[in-house]
Amino acid sequence: MSDLLAPLFRPAAPGLFGDRARIQGILDFEAALARAHARVGTCPAQAAETIARFCKAELLDSAALAEATAQAGNLAIPVVSALTRRVAAEDSEAVRYVHKGATSQDAIDTGLVLQLRSFITVLEQDLERLSSALARLAETNRVTPISGRTWLQQAAPTVFGLKAAGHLDAVERHAVRLAELRPRLLVLQFGGAVGTLGSLGERGIEVAEELARELRLPLPEMPWHGQRDRPAELATFLGLLTGTLGKLARDLSLLAQTEIGEAFEPAAEGRGGSSTMPQKRNPVSAAVVLAAAARAPGLVATILSAMVQEHERGLGGWHAEWETLPELCLLAAGALRHGAEAMDGIELDPRRMRENIARGGGQIFAEAAASRLAERLGRTEAHALVERAARRAQSGGKHLRAALEEEKAVRQHLSAADLDAIFDVDRLPGAAAAFIDRVLARRRQRLEAR
Amino acid sequence: MSDLLAPLFRPAAPGLFGDRARIQGILDFEAALARAHARVGTCPAQAAETIARFCKAELLDSAALAEATAQAGNLAIPVVSALTRRVAAEDSEAVRYVHKGATSQDAIDTGLVLQLRSFITVLEQDLERLSSALARLAETNRVTPISGRTWLQQAAPTVFGLKAAGHLDAVERHAVRLAELRPRLLVLQFGGAVGTLGSLGERGIEVAEELARELRLPLPEMPWHGQRDRPAELATFLGLLTGTLGKLARDLSLLAQTEIGEAFEPAAEGRGGSSTMPQKRNPVSAAVVLAAAARAPGLVATILSAMVQEHERGLGGWHAEWETLPELCLLAAGALRHGAEAMDGIELDPRRMRENIARGGGQIFAEAAASRLAERLGRTEAHALVERAARRAQSGGKHLRAALEEEKAVRQHLSAADLDAIFDVDRLPGAAAAFIDRVLARRRQRLEAR
Amino acid sequence: MSDLLAPLFRPAAPGLFGDRARIQGILDFEAALARAHARVGTCPAQAAETIARFCKAELLDSAALAEATAQAGNLAIPVVSALTRRVAAEDSEAVRYVHKGATSQDAIDTGLVLQLRSFITVLEQDLERLSSALARLAETNRVTPISGRTWLQQAAPTVFGLKAAGHLDAVERHAVRLAELRPRLLVLQFGGAVGTLGSLGERGIEVAEELARELRLPLPEMPWHGQRDRPAELATFLGLLTGTLGKLARDLSLLAQTEIGEAFEPAAEGRGGSSTMPQKRNPVSAAVVLAAAARAPGLVATILSAMVQEHERGLGGWHAEWETLPELCLLAAGALRHGAEAMDGIELDPRRMRENIARGGGQIFAEAAASRLAERLGRTEAHALVERAARRAQSGGKHLRAALEEEKAVRQHLSAADLDAIFDVDRLPGAAAAFIDRVLARRRQRLEAR
Amino acid sequence: MSDLLAPLFRPAAPGLFGDRARIQGILDFEAALARAHARVGTCPAQAAETIARFCKAELLDSAALAEATAQAGNLAIPVVSALTRRVAAEDSEAVRYVHKGATSQDAIDTGLVLQLRSFITVLEQDLERLSSALARLAETNRVTPISGRTWLQQAAPTVFGLKAAGHLDAVERHAVRLAELRPRLLVLQFGGAVGTLGSLGERGIEVAEELARELRLPLPEMPWHGQRDRPAELATFLGLLTGTLGKLARDLSLLAQTEIGEAFEPAAEGRGGSSTMPQKRNPVSAAVVLAAAARAPGLVATILSAMVQEHERGLGGWHAEWETLPELCLLAAGALRHGAEAMDGIELDPRRMRENIARGGGQIFAEAAASRLAERLGRTEAHALVERAARRAQSGGKHLRAALEEEKAVRQHLSAADLDAIFDVDRLPGAAAAFIDRVLARRRQRLEAR
Repeated sequence: MSDLLAPLFRPAAPGLFGDRARIQGILDFEAALARAHARVGTCPAQAAETIARFCKAELLDSAALAEATAQAGNLAIPVVSALTRRVAAEDSEAVRYVHKGATSQDAIDTGLVLQLRSFITVLEQDLERLSSALARLAETNRVTPISGRTWLQQAAPTVFGLKAAGHLDAVERHAVRLAELRPRLLVLQFGGAVGTLGSLGERGIEVAEELARELRLPLPEMPWHGQRDRPAELATFLGLLTGTLGKLARDLSLLAQTEIGEAFEPAAEGRGGSSTMPQKRNPVSAAVVLAAAARAPGLVATILSAMVQEHERGLGGWHAEWETLPELCLLAAGALRHGAEAMDGIELDPRRMRENIARGGGQIFAEAAASRLAERLGRTEAHALVERAARRAQSGGKHLRAALEEEKAVRQHLSAADLDAIFDVDRLPGAAAAFIDRVLARRRQRLEAR
Repeated sequence: MSDLLAPLFRPAAPGLFGDRARIQGILDFEAALARAHARVGTCPAQAAETIARFCKAELLDSAALAEATAQAGNLAIPVVSALTRRVAAEDSEAVRYVHKGATSQDAIDTGLVLQLRSFITVLEQDLERLSSALARLAETNRVTPISGRTWLQQAAPTVFGLKAAGHLDAVERHAVRLAELRPRLLVLQFGGAVGTLGSLGERGIEVAEELARELRLPLPEMPWHGQRDRPAELATFLGLLTGTLGKLARDLSLLAQTEIGEAFEPAAEGRGGSSTMPQKRNPVSAAVVLAAAARAPGLVATILSAMVQEHERGLGGWHAEWETLPELCLLAAGALRHGAEAMDGIELDPRRMRENIARGGGQIFAEAAASRLAERLGRTEAHALVERAARRAQSGGKHLRAALEEEKAVRQHLSAADLDAIFDVDRLPGAAAAFIDRVLARRRQRLEAR
Repeated sequence: MSDLLAPLFRPAAPGLFGDRARIQGILDFEAALARAHARVGTCPAQAAETIARFCKAELLDSAALAEATAQAGNLAIPVVSALTRRVAAEDSEAVRYVHKGATSQDAIDTGLVLQLRSFITVLEQDLERLSSALARLAETNRVTPISGRTWLQQAAPTVFGLKAAGHLDAVERHAVRLAELRPRLLVLQFGGAVGTLGSLGERGIEVAEELARELRLPLPEMPWHGQRDRPAELATFLGLLTGTLGKLARDLSLLAQTEIGEAFEPAAEGRGGSSTMPQKRNPVSAAVVLAAAARAPGLVATILSAMVQEHERGLGGWHAEWETLPELCLLAAGALRHGAEAMDGIELDPRRMRENIARGGGQIFAEAAASRLAERLGRTEAHALVERAARRAQSGGKHLRAALEEEKAVRQHLSAADLDAIFDVDRLPGAAAAFIDRVLARRRQRLEAR
Repeated sequence: MSDLLAPLFRPAAPGLFGDRARIQGILDFEAALARAHARVGTCPAQAAETIARFCKAELLDSAALAEATAQAGNLAIPVVSALTRRVAAEDSEAVRYVHKGATSQDAIDTGLVLQLRSFITVLEQDLERLSSALARLAETNRVTPISGRTWLQQAAPTVFGLKAAGHLDAVERHAVRLAELRPRLLVLQFGGAVGTLGSLGERGIEVAEELARELRLPLPEMPWHGQRDRPAELATFLGLLTGTLGKLARDLSLLAQTEIGEAFEPAAEGRGGSSTMPQKRNPVSAAVVLAAAARAPGLVATILSAMVQEHERGLGGWHAEWETLPELCLLAAGALRHGAEAMDGIELDPRRMRENIARGGGQIFAEAAASRLAERLGRTEAHALVERAARRAQSGGKHLRAALEEEKAVRQHLSAADLDAIFDVDRLPGAAAAFIDRVLARRRQRLEAR
């Protein structure tokens, strides 16, 4: 991760997973652990407060920690050592209680969980912002005709509101998924060397309960040092979310093509310029989101591969998570922020949407024509007739309506009014409005149930 | 996917995603669609039954369909064509109603959902089988001492029951996840060309509702042709599940190493032999599960990458799902079956577990010694003392207890009884029993809540 | 892999990695091994021929082998058993020499290498076909103006020949890469149980040399059972190739959009139809290639992950290759075939290319204007002036030339002839021709050096 | 990427891809471009030197560049702007020539290539260091018996030198691969807006040639903005290399298990300690390498996925490379450094290797027994006999030799001397020495050919 590229790729939650935060997460665990011991009576209250007083990342020397980490193999060892030295210098009694009963992974994993708790709050807010922008677009574009496109070809007419509702529908599912995984993810990690809390003897569970209370994290059934489905589930969720955002950005960038020009990212001075082409307004948010969508699957795969961890605490798999999960979090949240902003300020050009339909020479209404004719001719014959007319129109550069009118069966079965209806760009397509309503209603239900 | 390797890699759900099933899924959709039209009144009941009568995969020629698919670009087109020809030959009226209002993707996606419904039932059963085997192991091995190992080194003692409980804990979370995603996954796909049900005019929603009822699939808020988070969520779930299984298999294979020999896959005549080494009993199930765990992350990444689909229906992304998702389903289910069977019949050697502890020269009790001494010397000093003794013991080939007894502080603070307790392999480690109980209780709760 | 979808996704090399071929590969190894022993004198010539006579896949029962593989854990064990039984029934002396000195992995890996040898021949032919089609397109479209597009926006003019040359340039590099990896990949695997040829005592190397000669495969420095970079390198090559093909297909599909319409896949009766939209001609080859490009990265990642194999022969990693590598081979070769056919028969519409330039209101010439003005005003001022004019033209719906002419500095520094030159669609862009020539020359050099 | 974890995960090439280097790469391009223009005569020599004088990363404000990048969408735009402002303040004439004829991607890609040139030098050195360490191990351990293990089980005896030779063999292939891809990777990128050098008119190629000379980079056949196989090939190479290193680290960590204890990473004070277990010496290098091996496949997959870039310059794909490729470079180089150091200082315990063979009760010699008996009984019967004896020995806790001696056929066909030979741990296994020699010879050839 480059700091230079952070405001571009990771505008949301800056600092949330920075090195300072990483250290502080460990120290928050250590402070809470000391206090938990104090509550249980396995550490004097005074000592606990002394320890907690030194649990501040700004007191430690990052560069020295980095060097020591290279020797120790994890960050918690030098952080705990530095804390120990600090406390020892102050209070030779208190120092006995530093890190008592814990192992490095307890501190690192719980520290991560604390960072993830803040992260998920940010994510929820941006998800809501995106959902709300899409709901507005769905609502206000119920009758905005636009080409429906399949296989990158104009296919049949739809409305822009339904396109927005499609994105909204997916985003709403993501909101539900996030709510479901949250309680599985945000739990304490505390098991000592091999997950037995062995060095605390009979008091382990009590200390664990107090520690969980102190950190406002639920106490899980048991430690999960080697069972990584909790963080991995977050990774897969972020992969799904980024996939949906990538689809949204792909669509937006396709609509913004010079030759299509139906929708654009919000403009801003200096945004998306080119070092050589003065006319350019590059879709920066789409680029960022698509980059995230290209990167997330590989990062998710890494987290899944890394689940195969050995015995009580593994070798290499856990280490592979340390940078990968934060990176994935930040890329996904960055993509979400860009997506929400783009949908908030999207510029639509309904006139171009109509023009693009019109410029297709009526071909986009072929399905409508065929299904109308099918009532008389049967589906197969109607399909063949319209296909024939469509080919003739394409090669002859004529309108599909004209080509259809050359067909005897058309003249026989369809009146001019029928044809007007078939080729009417303002005829609302089938169930589009009903679908939009259903999606909006589901969103309202979710909001009301909160 | 090789048929030769199918019984090895994909023992669960054979045929569930075979070519026959793929065709039948499409035909089930078509039959139900005709009947739905009949109920709504947009197709004569007689015609619907005629259509349904021909919706049998065995009536169609697979080889011809394969060739036609290469031209058409998807399987539904030739299946619908073949069905149309069959129906036409029987009833020139009924043929009008074949595939009415639908697009290829409606049939293919819904067909897939129907296969997935059967698949999930299989998965649930095998999850339960695995969970139940692990619960039994956790229960019956509460006091079976075994080395806890971290970074592939002996670390501190634990019990085998806690190892089993760790796996069980993860498996139980998977059961909950599967129950949560099920209703999002198993829904109808029906939107016509561009997701508007445009060719059905005002009757679209009614037909959709009847179709959903016919197939016993909920009607989603709107079609999801281009929004692939539903199937992708299943893929990520299978990735998580396979990760957990991979961890289980890795652990089992490590325990089964010649030099460790603490646990083994169930033996069977001819199982895991070698073409050249007569003594070998290779852990076949572990190999299969680890292979699945190596393959799943890449397949999940593919499904996530493929989520970036264009507009109403995309180009290439959807096509990338067709083989990838079934493959992932079968590999994950195969790994689950192997995992369940291995846990059902696992052979434990508690004697070797004790021997391996014993052969470590007491080093595994270093943490216990240090935490006991820390009460007197403080954590830092105690850690340093025991580390010193441990190194001396390692290099001198002596027992840690002997090396400790050479330390003055040890002789001063610890009695022989204290040392007996520290080095007692039968002392139950800390909170292990409590953790096991908590995991078992959670499982019972889930079962009771069903 | 579905047989139904094979002609679509895997048109090249059908059967090359089928189950029959998989068995035959093992048997080819066994036959050659017997003959090698005969040459060295460690097996009677008669016995070797008896063995070889039974090394025919069609003599074995696939279904029985599949079931036995599920027990044994690999395919070679039951194949060798079946072969042994056959030979034993014929000649109780010859049977002693079956599989002598080999391990299962020797037979399976060498069998794979034999299949890969055929595969690479197919790949080379299709690479040449694609290269030749692209060379023709580059040559014949040196002066065919088309919009150069960046970030999916019209940017500056280029020629279609340069686009073709860009693809060609990459394809030529792939041809070189394939030639480089070939000798590393196509080598014998023969090491016995742990890669020492231990059971052959002093004769191991001799037998290995004769075996290599028999199979016309070089003898590598040593066996590579656990070192998987050889097959993994092929996988990464196929990933790179598929990436290039994906780019080609993406470009083609974007050019084929209804609103752009500059290039199309070759048309064929019934190709790319729609089950509901009679006018559709879907780009089937692009879909197939893009699907392969979405699938290949995950499969490559699997092969790379699986390289971490334990000791002399690993657990799970090797097994993960068995289906993944053939699948990747077939998908890549299928994509190459589709790409070659599409480029062979591509339909270009140079008129639409010009129209699309024209319809952009001259914006595409903004860089040309700015660089011309920069000679007088400096780059910064010129860029700012043209940017201002471009915005005014965009918002006012006027041509960029008109907007420029409103600028005093333009009127001062540029004549009408200057402006004609700037906005001349037929002015050949810079070094395009030179670049095309360089690429074509490199191709000729490679062909001549063969 | 976390700075805190950099010394652990990325000890090689610190700073090589840092933000400062990223900026300097762009500026090196700009300085060279100005000088190239001066040589061609399209820029005054004085102006070029003025521009070059300001091409120093330390003159620019990183934080401001980061913010501006978020607006502009790439780093080159603000870097060029800042450079332009600096030059303008000094020399209003020189400013005209800044970035002349180039596009942002020219500067960014060429800047990257310059960084990669330094990187590859580092990589070559560390590859040589690893190769040399492995060659020494192979040479000095020709007759060091160790258990050959397959499927994580003792299989048959080998020598440690052959294990080292296996790694060496792969590392040598990597050295060749790197030499092959180097000239494809380290080339200039210079094409202007759409790869035509359009704004330089007829002088484009000349400027490009001088620019290439200035930077000591070959001029490729044509620009490769949208064709990403060059950097992607490096990514795949790094994936292969990391796979090999992962295998090496996996093997090392397995050998270092408490119960096996045959080989260890070099010890160092404070290295691989535990925060709670005083006796631990965790294999830090193995953890780092295995983490890299878990991360590389996903990063490679990202780079492959990102190859599908649109038209002349793509949207999102290129952006996905910016952080992914440097990260992969650093992780792979870090793993290589750890691997080289571990092999340089590996601690072997040949006594434990023998003990572990001995403790297996002779089972490891089963293949030797069977192949010896096969000469008399035929392979099938011999295999069955030894299998029977091996099972009896395993279940009865007796030595395989004793169990064999219970078999009449053994007593009949094998003398005591025969059995002594079969069970002789010091008998050199087959072709091991020959294989070691072949690998060492190949290495010498490569070194001599340099």
